[in-house]
Amino acid sequence: MTELRTLKVALLGCGNVGAQVARILIEDADALAARTGARLQLSGIAVRNVNAKRDVELPQELFTTDAETLVKDADLVIELMGGIEPARTLILSALENGACVVTGNKALLAQDGPTLYEAADKAGVQLSYEAAVAGAIPILRPIRDSLSGDRITRVLGIVNGTTNFILDQMDSTGAQFADALAEAQRLGYAEADPTADVEGHDAAAKAAILATLSFHTRFALENVHCEGITSVSAADIAAAKDAGFVIKLLAIAEKLTDADGNEGVSVRVHPTLLPREHPLAAVRGAFNAVFIEAENAGELMFYGQGAGGTPTASAVLGDLVSAARRLVLGGPQRTETTTGHVPALTIEAATTSYYIGLDVADQPGVLARIAQLFAEHGVSIEIMRQTIHKDAESNVESAELRIVTHRASEAALAATVEAVKGLDVINSVTSVLRVEGV
Amino acid sequence: MTELRTLKVALLGCGNVGAQVARILIEDADALAARTGARLQLSGIAVRNVNAKRDVELPQELFTTDAETLVKDADLVIELMGGIEPARTLILSALENGACVVTGNKALLAQDGPTLYEAADKAGVQLSYEAAVAGAIPILRPIRDSLSGDRITRVLGIVNGTTNFILDQMDSTGAQFADALAEAQRLGYAEADPTADVEGHDAAAKAAILATLSFHTRFALENVHCEGITSVSAADIAAAKDAGFVIKLLAIAEKLTDADGNEGVSVRVHPTLLPREHPLAAVRGAFNAVFIEAENAGELMFYGQGAGGTPTASAVLGDLVSAARRLVLGGPQRTETTTGHVPALTIEAATTSYYIGLDVADQPGVLARIAQLFAEHGVSIEIMRQTIHKDAESNVESAELRIVTHRASEAALAATVEAVKGLDVINSVTSVLRVEGV
Repeated sequence: MTELRTLKVALLGCGNVGAQVARILIEDADALAARTGARLQLSGIAVRNVNAKRDVELPQELFTTDAETLVKDADLVIELMGGIEPARTLILSALENGACVVTGNKALLAQDGPTLYEAADKAGVQLSYEAAVAGAIPILRPIRDSLSGDRITRVLGIVNGTTNFILDQMDSTGAQFADALAEAQRLGYAEADPTADVEGHDAAAKAAILATLSFHTRFALENVHCEGITSVSAADIAAAKDAGFVIKLLAIAEKLTDADGNEGVSVRVHPTLLPREHPLAAVRGAFNAVFIEAENAGELMFYGQGAGGTPTASAVLGDLVSAARRLVLGGPQRTETTTGHVPALTIEAATTSYYIGLDVADQPGVLARIAQLFAEHGVSIEIMRQTIHKDAESNVESAELRIVTHRASEAALAATVEAVKGLDVINSVTSVLRVEGV
Repeated sequence: MTELRTLKVALLGCGNVGAQVARILIEDADALAARTGARLQLSGIAVRNVNAKRDVELPQELFTTDAETLVKDADLVIELMGGIEPARTLILSALENGACVVTGNKALLAQDGPTLYEAADKAGVQLSYEAAVAGAIPILRPIRDSLSGDRITRVLGIVNGTTNFILDQMDSTGAQFADALAEAQRLGYAEADPTADVEGHDAAAKAAILATLSFHTRFALENVHCEGITSVSAADIAAAKDAGFVIKLLAIAEKLTDADGNEGVSVRVHPTLLPREHPLAAVRGAFNAVFIEAENAGELMFYGQGAGGTPTASAVLGDLVSAARRLVLGGPQRTETTTGHVPALTIEAATTSYYIGLDVADQPGVLARIAQLFAEHGVSIEIMRQTIHKDAESNVESAELRIVTHRASEAALAATVEAVKGLDVINSVTSVLRVEGV
């Protein structure tokens, strides 16, 4: 074998994922060199505390607190520190120096992506971030490259393992949210402060990235409507189950036409009912999956582990080897193309289907009155199902009404629900949830 | 918008997929130009008969029978004629002229891939063939690029929609193979001569391509052990179902150690039992899916439409846009890296799990004798289940024994089955099928 060129790799951050990336770079050095056509030499690992205890044993001399100097001397920079600063400054410095950058920093990409993409474009180097969405699952490259000759119309993603685990627990055991969260924390699937996961913020950052790549237009975090799963009750799950649905926290990006006939993209995260037969409904536990609908390709799904040090390291190393191969080949690096300008639709302008659970009086004519009210508000009903309950002691009958609507706007739905509440035959509105895949 | 460079695209073949590729190249010209940074001009379509009736209306002046001349003048060549010749000669001629080639020709790639890869390497141009495996599903690029920093250990693919449709029909309706095949032919899922599909030849070509990319070593069709589904009976399906399995025709490529301790890759196609909970078990009808196990990434699955003109056209156009982007950027083209030299294991050397169905006499001690016989042949039993049937008229009891083994070699299993047949308590061996995913 002829002498291979050596490329210097700087690693910023040595947490769960970083430590595995370092381990693989060292252990699999020969295989990676064969794959790349160059030796990938880990030149250093920038951390806050060089003496911190780590899960993986790594050569002590690699550690440094001087990230700036490490970055200046690198051909390839892997940023796995997370957070906005100093990650942002270090990435920009690396790009300006002509280094290719691989990052898994979804928060930074969602907040300040355009600045980073522009810096990479200007320097003519690659900025890759497969690990930022859905961990080990190759999803960004297929969207960007494999589907580049197609038109994506909708993306539905289970992109947060913590919330999928919690909802799956609630679905399979009937547990309340708080108990399922406690179980997730006990098993290490949820952090002590679970806010970023359960409030949907993590999924929202990923939704912005997926939407940006899928629709060739830059979407930022503020374009993403975000609702978490804290208000999903065991009763919601049970009602959904009974009606043949499962509740998932979905990151959604889809092309829609608003009420005024303008085309746009709705990017949103919220608990969503999915029919049990939908391919995403079978995604259990902490797994992730992204379901894509494209004009020509039709339905596609990508499934795998969405988190974890080693699986996410696989995505980081895939990006690293691809960037290094390109450095070895020479010639200009590929840069991003975001040529479209599709406006982001607000949640008020977007239309979705809804599931509405109602506790109603068991009287003749109730269904007709409710159906009439929906029609008056321009909300079309797809499925209406009534179940009669008889209280064993009092012998009083009550009825449960479950409605799935066709696509309606947020505003029309809210007005309908308000009006329904005013009916004397309504005991209570038990749930209002969005539906996909029907 | 500044004046874009024009790239000439020659299309060879105008069947089901070719016609859709031509349509999209014409209809979506502006979007493709925006994505590519160059106008992709369809310079001609080479066909055998320029006056043949086609499903899609295309400008008559594009058609020509002179493929050679068309190829000579093209920047990008799309080969969708199928078959070995003249496809092979035309692709080699295109590569020699410095054109990038996109093909969906799995038969040619499986038979003569190395010649084509070498010609592309030598010319320094791209040869892409995403459409050759699993239609619209982006699977080859993720394996080659996204997983380039990982080690794939096993690939299990449902890569033939015709056989998946037939097996799914048999599973859901209890139909025999011949009836399910007739239904598939009626619906257009199977051809009048279904040999290539039902005998597993189509899946074998795809298995060779998947193995080549996954294990960085060139595997040809002759390295693939191939069994089709013609001998799968309704009784096999019913027994599998009853035991919690589903039968799928799988293309398998996995790293294994043979009996002598040598590492190698087993590449094979055969009907396979999968537990109903396995992600591949839920792949219904004519859909395709590829399940990948990698050392770091863990389990991944890619799901979508495996055939059809428009879905497959999506994969062709993804390859075309990627190659064209690289032409626009300039610099050397990426070429294949097949640096490994893992030997192909024969089916005799490979080990798999087996399901064995036995009709046995209902006598005490039968289970023990059979278990003893398996042990003597070095085949370890994982699951053994006995069900007693009583004939309503004769009152004679018989027993059905279902055995799932741990991994065993083909030779050991065959010897065991022979020995079992010789036992006086055995009425018949009802099925012997391979098992994955347990």
